[in-house]
Amino acid sequence: MILLLGASGYIGEAFVRELQRRQWPFQPLSRKEVDYSRFEVLLDLLKRTKPEFLVNVAGFTGKPNVDACEIARAETLAGNALLPQIIAHACAVCAVPWGHVSSGCIFSGAKLTRNGQTRAEKDLTRPDIHSLAEQSPEAIQGFTETDHPNFTFRDLPCSFYSGTKALGEEAITGVGRSYIWRLRIPFDEYDNARNYLSKVQRYAKVYENINSISHRGDFARACLDLWERRAPFGIYNVTNPGFVTTRQVVGLVEQILKPAKRFEFWRDDTEFYQKAAKTPRSNCVLDVSKLLAAGVKIRPVVEAIEDSLRNWKPEAAQGVK
Amino acid sequence: MILLLGASGYIGEAFVRELQRRQWPFQPLSRKEVDYSRFEVLLDLLKRTKPEFLVNVAGFTGKPNVDACEIARAETLAGNALLPQIIAHACAVCAVPWGHVSSGCIFSGAKLTRNGQTRAEKDLTRPDIHSLAEQSPEAIQGFTETDHPNFTFRDLPCSFYSGTKALGEEAITGVGRSYIWRLRIPFDEYDNARNYLSKVQRYAKVYENINSISHRGDFARACLDLWERRAPFGIYNVTNPGFVTTRQVVGLVEQILKPAKRFEFWRDDTEFYQKAAKTPRSNCVLDVSKLLAAGVKIRPVVEAIEDSLRNWKPEAAQGVK
Repeated sequence: MILLLGASGYIGEAFVRELQRRQWPFQPLSRKEVDYSRFEVLLDLLKRTKPEFLVNVAGFTGKPNVDACEIARAETLAGNALLPQIIAHACAVCAVPWGHVSSGCIFSGAKLTRNGQTRAEKDLTRPDIHSLAEQSPEAIQGFTETDHPNFTFRDLPCSFYSGTKALGEEAITGVGRSYIWRLRIPFDEYDNARNYLSKVQRYAKVYENINSISHRGDFARACLDLWERRAPFGIYNVTNPGFVTTRQVVGLVEQILKPAKRFEFWRDDTEFYQKAAKTPRSNCVLDVSKLLAAGVKIRPVVEAIEDSLRNWKPEAAQGVK
Repeated sequence: MILLLGASGYIGEAFVRELQRRQWPFQPLSRKEVDYSRFEVLLDLLKRTKPEFLVNVAGFTGKPNVDACEIARAETLAGNALLPQIIAHACAVCAVPWGHVSSGCIFSGAKLTRNGQTRAEKDLTRPDIHSLAEQSPEAIQGFTETDHPNFTFRDLPCSFYSGTKALGEEAITGVGRSYIWRLRIPFDEYDNARNYLSKVQRYAKVYENINSISHRGDFARACLDLWERRAPFGIYNVTNPGFVTTRQVVGLVEQILKPAKRFEFWRDDTEFYQKAAKTPRSNCVLDVSKLLAAGVKIRPVVEAIEDSLRNWKPEAAQGVK
């Protein structure tokens, strides 16, 4: 039996769906049912139910966006740093292997190769980088699991959210046996306030950047594949291979969904941070070679976006949730 | 045997001295010897050594002062929130009762009674409050253990240090059996950069405020007394009873040590925060009725200050440390 913590959240739903599809026995839990943030409650639960694997999808992301985490600091820290540590300890004591949904948002930028030289750059908004992305995408490489997160409390600036997610990874690394699955900017065919493809359509103006992103269903599938294949424990970047510019995403939305709306972009970073955002945002490219080398199959990012848009389910059509 | 974590620090030294005085068997540990911040290392240590009680004095305070914690956020969180949680979990698993040195700096202000009405006020720098402190000290009451900390991430503003100390308390409350001992602004007769009486003498200008403070040796003695008396587990404010204004402390220093220096004060909060401090400081009065009701004896604050100054040991006279 697999124990699923945080089952009622946006990413939790994708795990529920994928576990059902596989017909794997599992127990979905929300904190309303069992307060697994209490160490001894969780310990007791593990001793009683003896799961073969545990998945933690719970965390604090901030609503409507990460700016909320700058205010709700205690909740952000409790959800993203203290809770993973609680789970790590309980699982270690009970010898339960587990997987934790972390975030790729602890990185900023990408590794750029220009004139034969490769170096990490944090700011991907510059026009010359976007030209590079269009003309020589192979010159833009993602961060791997051996790279040090560079958008954290140890490498400022960062958002409070990202700082706590990075601490969460540190808190569980080296304790027991666990996967750290790094998600980035989830999207899929279900129109939703958390879906990146919905967000892009709803923003007053769009922020041009470059990102690796994760199809929600593909993400859950890849995470469970790692466990099914008994891949070595440790950190895995779990995004759809490749990257996209916001302009590309908007182009696909226009081409496939043909919305009446005309998309506008923020002029630059300055305007974006003056008018739309408070805390710095992570925009980054991740490398998924390790995931692929483990034998996990996952669609290239553009294919996943196109497929989501072709099967687009507007919120109204999904019924009341 | 008592296991003492963080034995090499400023407060750790006081526990070492007090444990030696009592001739209680104990094992002092610093992280250089054993990395007790690693859950499984600590768990293994507890299983092997089976201490009857554990004392955690380790934490991250920032040098030269709490402003450093605003920068060293990862270390501050790891030391003050994640570490206590690690210890709480390991002690719960091994059924080891323990005590944690927390901080009263998660409060700001005091409860003031004026015109028959009592209300909490956060700012104790106002001249009218200082007049009250001199003329009717009984009108100034401290926060008790049932009051909610009001200088935390849940009740902004706070310093990053205070926010993490409050989270540390939350992380261990309700897990296993533990004391939370709240220390405030340590001082004693040993001249030292961490000693409040040394700081007051070394500051370019002094910040006039009102505080409950803890004699370092009295603090260690009171904490161990609680354990020796098998007082109920839980939170205890552990300061010398009463409070002092900075002006009173300066007066005692002038009267007893007769320094050549003439003390100057910051004009007001505005000047202090412009020139001397970055992050907000906690200044507060704590109520120690619970400690006294548990049968622990501890000197009134003025007596402890006078005694420290009469036995003052300048740093040069203490030999190389």
